[in-house]
Amino acid sequence: MVSEAKTTTPHHVVIIGGGFGGLYAAQALRKAPVKVTLIDKRNFHLFQPLLYQVATGGLSAGDISSPLRAILSHQKNTQVLMGKVIGLDPNQKTVQLPDKEISYDSLIVATGVSHHYFGNDQWAKDAPGLKTIEDALDIRRRIYSAFEAAEKETDPEKRRAWLTFVLVGGGPTGVELAGAMAELAYDTLKNDFRDIDTSEARILLLEGMDRILPPYPPELSVKAQNSLERLGVTVQTKTLVTNIDNDIVTMRRGEQVEEINAKTVLWAAGMKASAMGKALAQATGVELDRAGRVIVQPDMSLAGHPDIFVIGDLANFSHQTGKPLPGVAPVAMQQGKYVSTLIQKRLKEETVADFHYQDYGNLAVIGRNAAVVDLGFVKFSGFPAWLAWIFIHIFFLIEFDNKLLVMIQWAWHYLTFKRGVRLITNLEEEPAGNFEERRDYRTPVQV
Amino acid sequence: MVSEAKTTTPHHVVIIGGGFGGLYAAQALRKAPVKVTLIDKRNFHLFQPLLYQVATGGLSAGDISSPLRAILSHQKNTQVLMGKVIGLDPNQKTVQLPDKEISYDSLIVATGVSHHYFGNDQWAKDAPGLKTIEDALDIRRRIYSAFEAAEKETDPEKRRAWLTFVLVGGGPTGVELAGAMAELAYDTLKNDFRDIDTSEARILLLEGMDRILPPYPPELSVKAQNSLERLGVTVQTKTLVTNIDNDIVTMRRGEQVEEINAKTVLWAAGMKASAMGKALAQATGVELDRAGRVIVQPDMSLAGHPDIFVIGDLANFSHQTGKPLPGVAPVAMQQGKYVSTLIQKRLKEETVADFHYQDYGNLAVIGRNAAVVDLGFVKFSGFPAWLAWIFIHIFFLIEFDNKLLVMIQWAWHYLTFKRGVRLITNLEEEPAGNFEERRDYRTPVQV
Repeated sequence: MVSEAKTTTPHHVVIIGGGFGGLYAAQALRKAPVKVTLIDKRNFHLFQPLLYQVATGGLSAGDISSPLRAILSHQKNTQVLMGKVIGLDPNQKTVQLPDKEISYDSLIVATGVSHHYFGNDQWAKDAPGLKTIEDALDIRRRIYSAFEAAEKETDPEKRRAWLTFVLVGGGPTGVELAGAMAELAYDTLKNDFRDIDTSEARILLLEGMDRILPPYPPELSVKAQNSLERLGVTVQTKTLVTNIDNDIVTMRRGEQVEEINAKTVLWAAGMKASAMGKALAQATGVELDRAGRVIVQPDMSLAGHPDIFVIGDLANFSHQTGKPLPGVAPVAMQQGKYVSTLIQKRLKEETVADFHYQDYGNLAVIGRNAAVVDLGFVKFSGFPAWLAWIFIHIFFLIEFDNKLLVMIQWAWHYLTFKRGVRLITNLEEEPAGNFEERRDYRTPVQV
Repeated sequence: MVSEAKTTTPHHVVIIGGGFGGLYAAQALRKAPVKVTLIDKRNFHLFQPLLYQVATGGLSAGDISSPLRAILSHQKNTQVLMGKVIGLDPNQKTVQLPDKEISYDSLIVATGVSHHYFGNDQWAKDAPGLKTIEDALDIRRRIYSAFEAAEKETDPEKRRAWLTFVLVGGGPTGVELAGAMAELAYDTLKNDFRDIDTSEARILLLEGMDRILPPYPPELSVKAQNSLERLGVTVQTKTLVTNIDNDIVTMRRGEQVEEINAKTVLWAAGMKASAMGKALAQATGVELDRAGRVIVQPDMSLAGHPDIFVIGDLANFSHQTGKPLPGVAPVAMQQGKYVSTLIQKRLKEETVADFHYQDYGNLAVIGRNAAVVDLGFVKFSGFPAWLAWIFIHIFFLIEFDNKLLVMIQWAWHYLTFKRGVRLITNLEEEPAGNFEERRDYRTPVQV
């Protein structure tokens, strides 16, 4: 099937995307007789499951990022290229970057998804989502700026709007953000202001379905909701957001329509495939699902293009359960390893069985001492679940120094309730420069 | 002199600026019978002496920043306000913020300095300086992007320009940046690229005077230069930069004029006072020096305005040695404490002696195992100086969690030569958003 194995030029595997799928595929090829090129727009791997901690000031961006070059530094068959893929040609077997064209023998596409506003892209500016480091820093700036503005605001109604935080979407990201924000408002910041009482902050978590964490077993959804309510979060299920404009969130629950005045709205609902999905469809004729994800074969390849694989969140793999596998890190990691095995077997002219996802369970953290864990054979919640959650998340951080720093910061937060990384940076009005160094500096009034 | 002490309203001390001067003044007033308002444009105190570590990827912004509210959380007589002062009226004794006016009884101005291009402000875009967190992240982006661009560049001359780094100014910041960049290029990154050899990078440190670290004793300047050269830095003294344009740095050494092609130029020369200096001059008639710093009285107050004090880098205090005290953290900290003592004494109608700076010495780090320390009675360099430098810098970090994290990261870098915080964020072309999620996505070529 693949002939390059017999020539002197090694088989060239090109991987697009350095997330869980792409990085694990690259690492699994470290001893294979192939040449690997990993292309990513960014120069780092991001540990997305902890991004909500950056957004709420618990961790620094650097704590959950690892330089791709450092991870793969000693993997001599692998080159990292920072760049964006702007085209591909499945017949010539090439991908195009702005300044060069790269030939591949096998192509692995793992470019993931971004948020989706269900046709309401104008909501993006008022209700940012959480996918990138820049998103997290933007959300951190919004959250902490809202408390600062409330402290200065004298009009009670406006102050209330500054202290109202709406989270749209009750999946793991929404739940984790809500829990972290409740801790922030009701514990961390409680002594830090003089003119406002941060315990008056309202944190609303809105979910369209009849329960939060819909992919989890119902009893865990109930436990999660109870835990959030104990922390002070208002959970509203069966609630659809119908508009977000000018700090007003309009929502509908059955027949009831309500408007709420909130200066901070965060989006944790809906996602759509990255543009690479559409490009693949145009180039290969492969079918996309409604979210733009690529419908893959049982071996993660594309129909009619056995040398192109799509893995991770961008892939719609429905062969196992009849519905797409969830967009979570373990799926992407297993698919990355699977495809790298498949490529190596092919080079030896061996075959492999179809991809099979080994589901070790779901987990979501709710706040201090509270999480929910579903391992299939056992479900548990509360403090043991929280410890399990922390252990697993630290374990899967790529580099040892990240593990160490995150562990210490967690222990420190646990003991002190502090969140140290509360920097408001990149202010929109004044992106950089020194204090007061402004052109509009008003000449002092002289009598 | 001050009558408020006898009334029921407490004496109100307004401090502008939460750097070393302002923060230490506020903290020294914690038990005083006064009300304190600390105003800063930012919500955090920045430990500027370690900013070069953020700029070179050794530390995260959060590691060297402490939220002002958290530091002063339990200091009940003190309120923190995030905002910019846009005017002041010394007769009415008020300062203006965009949304409110604040009356003071005593005013402490500690707004520091920013960089200065000696009338060549157009150089700023090509040669950024290092004063703020945003500056540091911008410089980090430039440094790591240069190596990425070099890896992709095939033209040898352009590649050489990407691998040429010019640092203008041989003071402590320039020296510390040069040392860190040499470690980066010649150790940290040496296995990370495939098409370039990072040991070919050139790091040039340019200084106009006849030696680097001009305020230090000459023998330490020599040691510092030797250490830098051992690390691979090219040090050029008596060299003036006459132009920076389009990646070309023009410099003059005596009669000799040279041009060098460098994609990364960093500015560590010259500084000027923040705009607050000029505003004070207009409002009070106080004299400024050539750099815009405020010439203060022997008690740090302004001539004719005993209730207004200027401290830290913004102050020109020449009463002790005949020339201005250097713009370093210890001066600002001692001045902050001095003014807070003076205000408290005044309230008791006592007097205090003039300000006197207790100089404990100078120190600058050059790189791994190398620093120079001048304690007046003893000068030393090399590994003991490096340990002293690290110890002192960690000791003066405000919060315990910063101390702990910085210590661990330093130990980790020392053992592994790693720099973990190498994120290239806020790319100019594409500030946020997902990989490949671009409008100019080229439709694949179909045959």
